Amino acid sequence: MTKKSKEGLSAKKEENFSEWFQQLIIKSELADYSPVSGCIVFRPASFNIWEKTKEVIDNEFKKVGIKNVYFPMFIPEKLLSKEIEHVKGFAPEVAWVTHAGNTKLNEKLAIRPTSEAIMYGSYSKWIRSWRNLPLKLNQWVNVVRWEFNNPIPFFRTREFLFNEGHNAYSNKKELDKDKDKITKIYSEFLKNYMALPSLLGKKTDKEKFAGAVATYSSELYLPNGKAIQGPDYHDDGQNFAKAYNIKFLDKSGKEQFAYQSTYAISTRMLGIMFAIHSDNKGLIIPPKLAENKIVIIPLMFEKNKDILKKARELSSELSRHNPIVDDRLEVTPGYKFNEWELKGIPLRIEIGPKDLNKKEVVVARRDNEKKVSVKIKKIEEYINNELRKMQETLFKKAQKLLNDNINKADNLKDAIRKINGKKIVLVPLKNSSNVEEILKEKTKGAKTLNIPEKQPKIKGKKCIISGEQADYWVYVGKSY
Amino acid sequence: MTKKSKEGLSAKKEENFSEWFQQLIIKSELADYSPVSGCIVFRPASFNIWEKTKEVIDNEFKKVGIKNVYFPMFIPEKLLSKEIEHVKGFAPEVAWVTHAGNTKLNEKLAIRPTSEAIMYGSYSKWIRSWRNLPLKLNQWVNVVRWEFNNPIPFFRTREFLFNEGHNAYSNKKELDKDKDKITKIYSEFLKNYMALPSLLGKKTDKEKFAGAVATYSSELYLPNGKAIQGPDYHDDGQNFAKAYNIKFLDKSGKEQFAYQSTYAISTRMLGIMFAIHSDNKGLIIPPKLAENKIVIIPLMFEKNKDILKKARELSSELSRHNPIVDDRLEVTPGYKFNEWELKGIPLRIEIGPKDLNKKEVVVARRDNEKKVSVKIKKIEEYINNELRKMQETLFKKAQKLLNDNINKADNLKDAIRKINGKKIVLVPLKNSSNVEEILKEKTKGAKTLNIPEKQPKIKGKKCIISGEQADYWVYVGKSY
Repeated sequence: MTKKSKEGLSAKKEENFSEWFQQLIIKSELADYSPVSGCIVFRPASFNIWEKTKEVIDNEFKKVGIKNVYFPMFIPEKLLSKEIEHVKGFAPEVAWVTHAGNTKLNEKLAIRPTSEAIMYGSYSKWIRSWRNLPLKLNQWVNVVRWEFNNPIPFFRTREFLFNEGHNAYSNKKELDKDKDKITKIYSEFLKNYMALPSLLGKKTDKEKFAGAVATYSSELYLPNGKAIQGPDYHDDGQNFAKAYNIKFLDKSGKEQFAYQSTYAISTRMLGIMFAIHSDNKGLIIPPKLAENKIVIIPLMFEKNKDILKKARELSSELSRHNPIVDDRLEVTPGYKFNEWELKGIPLRIEIGPKDLNKKEVVVARRDNEKKVSVKIKKIEEYINNELRKMQETLFKKAQKLLNDNINKADNLKDAIRKINGKKIVLVPLKNSSNVEEILKEKTKGAKTLNIPEKQPKIKGKKCIISGEQADYWVYVGKSY
Repeated sequence: MTKKSKEGLSAKKEENFSEWFQQLIIKSELADYSPVSGCIVFRPASFNIWEKTKEVIDNEFKKVGIKNVYFPMFIPEKLLSKEIEHVKGFAPEVAWVTHAGNTKLNEKLAIRPTSEAIMYGSYSKWIRSWRNLPLKLNQWVNVVRWEFNNPIPFFRTREFLFNEGHNAYSNKKELDKDKDKITKIYSEFLKNYMALPSLLGKKTDKEKFAGAVATYSSELYLPNGKAIQGPDYHDDGQNFAKAYNIKFLDKSGKEQFAYQSTYAISTRMLGIMFAIHSDNKGLIIPPKLAENKIVIIPLMFEKNKDILKKARELSSELSRHNPIVDDRLEVTPGYKFNEWELKGIPLRIEIGPKDLNKKEVVVARRDNEKKVSVKIKKIEEYINNELRKMQETLFKKAQKLLNDNINKADNLKDAIRKINGKKIVLVPLKNSSNVEEILKEKTKGAKTLNIPEKQPKIKGKKCIISGEQADYWVYVGKSY
């Protein structure tokens, strides 16, 4: 038992989410702290999920005609400053390279916080005619945003990994068509792979991306009552095209500025997924994203060689689920159970002498702890079914968590009460930066998340801050 | 014709290699210059090949039990200095981050030139017992080495991409077993995918990796007479383990330092491949690494709709080779031929009205310019054969280039003459840093490349510099 409490999680998710989350990340070996403040090490267990994320999304991107590139991670200071809203948004968090070896650089270089400023000079060179459009380029890279807030593994780290897609079009119609495809790629990935529902909508003008015309985001609800933003999509209109001189001759020979969009999913999503699904025993990963979907634990195999043999047979039979056979002698079966639960293997198969006599094995599911004896000849079918069901169950559970924590509120007092009760509230609001500042103050830190596309009736509804006719219903919550 | 000379290559490979190479890279749209001196943009045409490289090698790494991770790209100054040879080797080229936003950092941070210094602190934490070994971790990342020499796209850029594998073992025997596997993964990739032969061998003590016990490299020969290093493998012995305190309890309970190795392939290899295979018409890519292996050009299809229809049919029939159908109306077939030759599509299929009547198409091969009429019903078989043959031909041609340019020399005068004639020479030499310095001076810049495993008889052979008994035969050449 001392062993267990040392290796397992001592904090409870429902009591101390923050401590629980940090223990989860470290003890299940997803990540580790590093000597660089605010930066983490992505260990194989989490990096594998990031690679799978890249693979699935990249495959979908290709169908939209998006191609991968790699731009330098350095941005000369002058270039960063070209789009004024953009530089205001990022400059306070930029890491600056000032020296190489012992030599001071002539111009200091920003490490990309995002790559508009380095990419769009090339776009300006490459795009001359409508024939060069659309141009749809993406890169999967590391970025640095030197936040001075308290870092949290995955949620807020100074270096993180993301995709940044940068598309340019000759007209807004084409851009909008891709917008729907791209936002769907993200939300379907969240739903079908990460088993996560999300709130989709448009950011308010105040909260949109620095330099964009409009930002569309997915927002998620964490078990600690905080909202957190998932993947986003920005309609940049012609803002960057004007700042970086991205012009083309249209079919009639007229010079026009290009229309642009950008979109991103980051390693933050991994943290969101770990936080929502996992429990006090450790990690829970949706089976579709688990590298090893099964661990096979042979019991008392030192005395009965047939057991280990059967375990290995099963392993090769179920090889497409990439099973682990845990044949260690130096630890007890109970220790093994705990360890693999902590590490989030979706299914555990136990084989003991009695089971073997009955030509059965015991299958235990990580998420609901269901244990069932299964005939060996039926094992493959059973496993396939359970993995599918587990994937569905996790989504439904996350859907319930989200639904249970969204409330409507049409006055400030009610909104504050619900926000204090850790809810996301849907409120009528004016489109006004000032109104949002007051909202933040009155709620001690809640901000607008996004404006859902499907709007309840807004006519006659008063803004909960200004009392005037509201412009829209918008989700509000305390947020990372 | 003006069109052609503007878009095509004006420099000749055999006359002005350097100008030809730079034109090749830019005009075939592999890469572009960037506003950051010494850094290039990897455009889709080259990045796609890098992604394929990663995929193939990563798949082989997995079979050796190597797992992928991601470590922070920042290295605090203190950590970089722990292994003294290592820091001496890299410090002059390190890019330093000194500020974040407007704040000066307490300790300046190096951007990884390689990651030993940031990874091995974690290794020291994670490795406690023989049970934690071997630990085989790899990352595919960007690195920065701020060279002050003249940058050349792919060959020498200040930021580049590579894999860095970092393995730790409990004994040297296990390490050596993996050494053979890992060096083979690289050389087989070069041979079977890049169609490139390489000289494998051990670096001299003078030229080995900073901090390593031994370095094993692959060296290649460029058409301009210069040697260039490909992927390498370093046996670090216990050097880094001692510097970073990576210790474990062995099976008998005794504390030991771990044995370590590292290995890398970088985007430089792409440049080597482009340079060796391509010609004065533009890019030549080995079919296995070409994203689009075929371009289909329908001729006079404006007047005969059946031609375009047949082109599309062929395209879907040959879809596994990812063909492009070039149905542009605004440019001539000749323009299209030139463009796709410049961009290195391995095979071109032309369909004209006469061909169609005879149920034939014309297939042209990029590398040897062979043009053959092929019955449409035999097209798939023909294409598969030609792609295979082209892959083989490229390798054989590269092999001939290498063989023709290696010479033995057992005295300095002969060696100098051959080096001046742009050869790589195999010479008997003492294992001595001093000897290599003199060699470099006498040859105006040639250095040792590596010591081949299969050695001609060395007994009685005198070092071409010192005149004493030589220690080994070693390749020497002018090198990037």
